[in-house]
Amino acid sequence: MAGFTARNPAFRETVRASFESQTFMRTLGVRMTGLEPGSCVLEMPSRPDLCQQNGFVHAGATTAIADTAAGYAAFSLVPPGANILTVEFKMNLLNPAEGEVLVARAEVIKSGRTLMVVRSDVTARGKGTETPVAAMLATMMSLQT
Amino acid sequence: MAGFTARNPAFRETVRASFESQTFMRTLGVRMTGLEPGSCVLEMPSRPDLCQQNGFVHAGATTAIADTAAGYAAFSLVPPGANILTVEFKMNLLNPAEGEVLVARAEVIKSGRTLMVVRSDVTARGKGTETPVAAMLATMMSLQT
Amino acid sequence: MAGFTARNPAFRETVRASFESQTFMRTLGVRMTGLEPGSCVLEMPSRPDLCQQNGFVHAGATTAIADTAAGYAAFSLVPPGANILTVEFKMNLLNPAEGEVLVARAEVIKSGRTLMVVRSDVTARGKGTETPVAAMLATMMSLQT
Amino acid sequence: MAGFTARNPAFRETVRASFESQTFMRTLGVRMTGLEPGSCVLEMPSRPDLCQQNGFVHAGATTAIADTAAGYAAFSLVPPGANILTVEFKMNLLNPAEGEVLVARAEVIKSGRTLMVVRSDVTARGKGTETPVAAMLATMMSLQT
Repeated sequence: MAGFTARNPAFRETVRASFESQTFMRTLGVRMTGLEPGSCVLEMPSRPDLCQQNGFVHAGATTAIADTAAGYAAFSLVPPGANILTVEFKMNLLNPAEGEVLVARAEVIKSGRTLMVVRSDVTARGKGTETPVAAMLATMMSLQT
Repeated sequence: MAGFTARNPAFRETVRASFESQTFMRTLGVRMTGLEPGSCVLEMPSRPDLCQQNGFVHAGATTAIADTAAGYAAFSLVPPGANILTVEFKMNLLNPAEGEVLVARAEVIKSGRTLMVVRSDVTARGKGTETPVAAMLATMMSLQT
Repeated sequence: MAGFTARNPAFRETVRASFESQTFMRTLGVRMTGLEPGSCVLEMPSRPDLCQQNGFVHAGATTAIADTAAGYAAFSLVPPGANILTVEFKMNLLNPAEGEVLVARAEVIKSGRTLMVVRSDVTARGKGTETPVAAMLATMMSLQT
Repeated sequence: MAGFTARNPAFRETVRASFESQTFMRTLGVRMTGLEPGSCVLEMPSRPDLCQQNGFVHAGATTAIADTAAGYAAFSLVPPGANILTVEFKMNLLNPAEGEVLVARAEVIKSGRTLMVVRSDVTARGKGTETPVAAMLATMMSLQT
């Protein structure tokens, strides 16, 4: 996956401002730890109030960071003034979301004029290891506003 | 979609107990308002701390209730002692998640020995209308414990 | 699912002409047996040269009719001169594709300006019964040419 | 993606025999050009009788090789006597399927006891270049027979 060029010279500021306006990311305690043209990394510390019935992080929370990372990977490539909407995503859950921090890494694999296809993988980091948790394949739409 | 029979006579209590142990559902303020063999309804009041950058409910929160409703629709059909895991889901976002309450309605469309396929639709209710927000198609796995 | 209005008064002729130009549909022996604004039905007789390793119709052939029905359900709604492309689809296989005829029934569930979301279900008909074979959820894009 | 070990010492023969019994692969002219534990490569020459309305290879044919490659990537890992069924797949179409040969490359990304998750990518080769055509994410189930 390579060689995307940002069309918005201020894409870092634009992405940051949008990310910081997402109240749900704040509620979940998510931080953006990586951003390049066409890719984005988010981290969410595990918390006891984000769990499903077996004490693992809930797939909804995992999806939230996978989708958001995918959205900002795509958003980093749009021209100034454009917006990004999630069209759809599909996610496979690979292992229980167990660990200290969940990490979502998204990469655009196809950047079209209107639609972008993004791969977003979630891993769980903890005790010196990193385990695959989920694999997402998502479609994003660029909207001129 | 019809005519599923619960194999666990105490499926209501089993589902409730599991749902109440999901801390993420509590964090999101989700209530279970419907449960029959093979179907489940969840409701999540809109809240300012669950939003994405445009002020609509975040797709991650929408996914959380769609996936959870799908899981309990499947869980209502398993024999006593079995567990349910989400294998994967795909979700199309149809309209902005705007309204007072988001409602997820899930129905099992195929109940196999090991796998169940579930449709889960999310709508937004408010001002006397109900708007489609998302359509999910999910696969659940029954695990004997 | 209801109440779509065709914007192309000649949508039947336009859809037919497009369908007849799909050589793969001819190769598979597929016929269009239903077409209304926002919906489409295709039928494919089972044939020994369309099978997978267990003698059932191959998921690729099943997908071909599910996707094509979804595409024409969407295509029936576009204005004159527009084209339809498949963006993506997800398909769950529910039962072996065994029977005399496979039937794909597609219905648009959301018709946007650029994107349409379509549900497409495949059943197997034979010996007086009809069995669910596959459930597809697809995204189509309308392109002005 | 790495380091899968085949549990069936005769996996090559077992996979080949199964592949050769798929009449649909013969109908489409597909050849298996790569097989290792956890991965599989299939090639399908473009043909005028496999096309959609714009003269590109039909998404159904592309899906057929993506799904089959995914299935045999998974099948290469099962113990002797087990079978593989496709549970579901999701496919994004990235570019028109235009070229002399379509190539599907599948890799298992998670191998569980019952379920396997497989990535399968299709490219179009021709005129000295190779273009991405489709990205699939699939779930396979291993069945003891």
